[in-house]
Amino acid sequence: MEPIRVTFLGPAASFSHQAAVECFGSSAELSPRLSFADAFAAVQQGEADYAIIPVENSTNGSVVQNLDLLADRYGLYEDVNVCGEHYLTVHHCLLVRKGLSQPDIRSITKLYTHPQAWGQCENFLAKFLKGIERQDVSSTSKAAETVSLETGEHSGAIASRFAADYHGLDVLSENIEDKADNTTRFLVLRNTKSERTARLSFDAVKAPSANLNPRLTPSAEKTLISFRIRQDFPGALADALLIFKDFGMNLTSINTRPSQRRAWQYVFFVECQQFPTDQNSQGVTRILDKMQQVTEGCRHLGTWKDQLPTSRV
Amino acid sequence: MEPIRVTFLGPAASFSHQAAVECFGSSAELSPRLSFADAFAAVQQGEADYAIIPVENSTNGSVVQNLDLLADRYGLYEDVNVCGEHYLTVHHCLLVRKGLSQPDIRSITKLYTHPQAWGQCENFLAKFLKGIERQDVSSTSKAAETVSLETGEHSGAIASRFAADYHGLDVLSENIEDKADNTTRFLVLRNTKSERTARLSFDAVKAPSANLNPRLTPSAEKTLISFRIRQDFPGALADALLIFKDFGMNLTSINTRPSQRRAWQYVFFVECQQFPTDQNSQGVTRILDKMQQVTEGCRHLGTWKDQLPTSRV
Repeated sequence: MEPIRVTFLGPAASFSHQAAVECFGSSAELSPRLSFADAFAAVQQGEADYAIIPVENSTNGSVVQNLDLLADRYGLYEDVNVCGEHYLTVHHCLLVRKGLSQPDIRSITKLYTHPQAWGQCENFLAKFLKGIERQDVSSTSKAAETVSLETGEHSGAIASRFAADYHGLDVLSENIEDKADNTTRFLVLRNTKSERTARLSFDAVKAPSANLNPRLTPSAEKTLISFRIRQDFPGALADALLIFKDFGMNLTSINTRPSQRRAWQYVFFVECQQFPTDQNSQGVTRILDKMQQVTEGCRHLGTWKDQLPTSRV
Repeated sequence: MEPIRVTFLGPAASFSHQAAVECFGSSAELSPRLSFADAFAAVQQGEADYAIIPVENSTNGSVVQNLDLLADRYGLYEDVNVCGEHYLTVHHCLLVRKGLSQPDIRSITKLYTHPQAWGQCENFLAKFLKGIERQDVSSTSKAAETVSLETGEHSGAIASRFAADYHGLDVLSENIEDKADNTTRFLVLRNTKSERTARLSFDAVKAPSANLNPRLTPSAEKTLISFRIRQDFPGALADALLIFKDFGMNLTSINTRPSQRRAWQYVFFVECQQFPTDQNSQGVTRILDKMQQVTEGCRHLGTWKDQLPTSRV
């Protein structure tokens, strides 16, 4: 069989790249894209079988660019659907060039990383690298690459071990992030019209290690639904959310983004969860039927196997 | 009487500064702060009577830093409360130095603005300034200041007319934003323990022009409540939201941020609205009583007069 084609936000050795490797294993054909929109388009146009995109971080919250792409306000990604999720624990390392004569944290004169990573490693930086010149770059992987290409400088990068391996750097300190449980949740996208991916269950194409839930445990299913509220119906939002409760669905997250149709109208993203049984197998269909009556533009964005062992809200 | 002291996120001539002038008029004593956290602290510590902070933009969505400060995870701003709101229409202009011999859009070789403003002016930039070098700066006002200080360069700034006036720049093109109704909503904060502000109704200290709702029309009141969900209660989020419906409150917005206590636990911000009557005057108190039973850390963040003429959701 042809290899599975997976796309993600580059550059190579980004956290998205690491998530793709963890989730799909080494036999998949991985290709970076320049933007999240390009990754969505690759799936819509059949250039990739799957895309893996970050949607939220346990510390920083939602990745709003990807919520906006899921909202699909211009109908560009009508066949793109969520078929899975993957949790990547974010560990930062302090990296230096290989083969330095004296690899010592005190010899570092300049640091590179993505702006968000400074904030995630504040304690370590305050303790060991106070006052050292900092240079923002567009990604942690770019930081690693920059340090790997420098020759005269004693510079350091804050990036993942994955990026260290990719760019051939030495790891001087590991797990330097303030919060040990800093985790990013990725969604896996596929094209609902693709025969290639329709033939395969997502579990079958995943790397075995990527399944957090042992196969024998019945695991919950998550469903993501987006909708707008009809502005002439006061109370419509509460009515819409009540539908999930009526069908025994547990709400696990709610996100809102501007609808960009009218000011102060929102697109809501509701994620809900249930343990599948014979009785509730039509639950999502029924919820969608009811939702159509109280909302505008209601869309089922996908149903997939929950990869967190416990309920989230 | 001493002048009202109002603080906002600087630098001078920022959109927050403009909102402060529109909302409080020219007799207030306005002072910029270096960060939103400093503005919250100034109100908590009584250094300012009011702070005015952006919470959402009709195109870009929530200002998550300010939601995080309202969440007050470390109990730093316990007496800070929302007492009003103000809507500022955001217009961007293309600004150049005064007195250029040939003020022409085609002579511009470099552009400065805040990262968010690039996205708000995409159509204009693609049409007239495609391929021109872009430099991110920390605010649109900073962009205007930077251009005002350059001498040799042919650079341009994207910023407001307010910033142009403040920094003495020429407006080359006005209203270059993609969306004509791009509006930012600000909240006004006060200290609940301040005797100075308790003596005054917020309407009395506002600039008369800042009241969008004519005084004779009965206007709706908005209430903001934050809470966390007890993770051991499936369905608790739906139960919590149902309480608002039971008391006839219309939900106008829901926002979520990571609780930063446990991964995947959230702080919810629910804004609701009602037209005050003698019958419902205890509604907020009763909602809070009920909410305590199904949530953790439930807090009433304020009740104020709705400045939008119609219901929002």
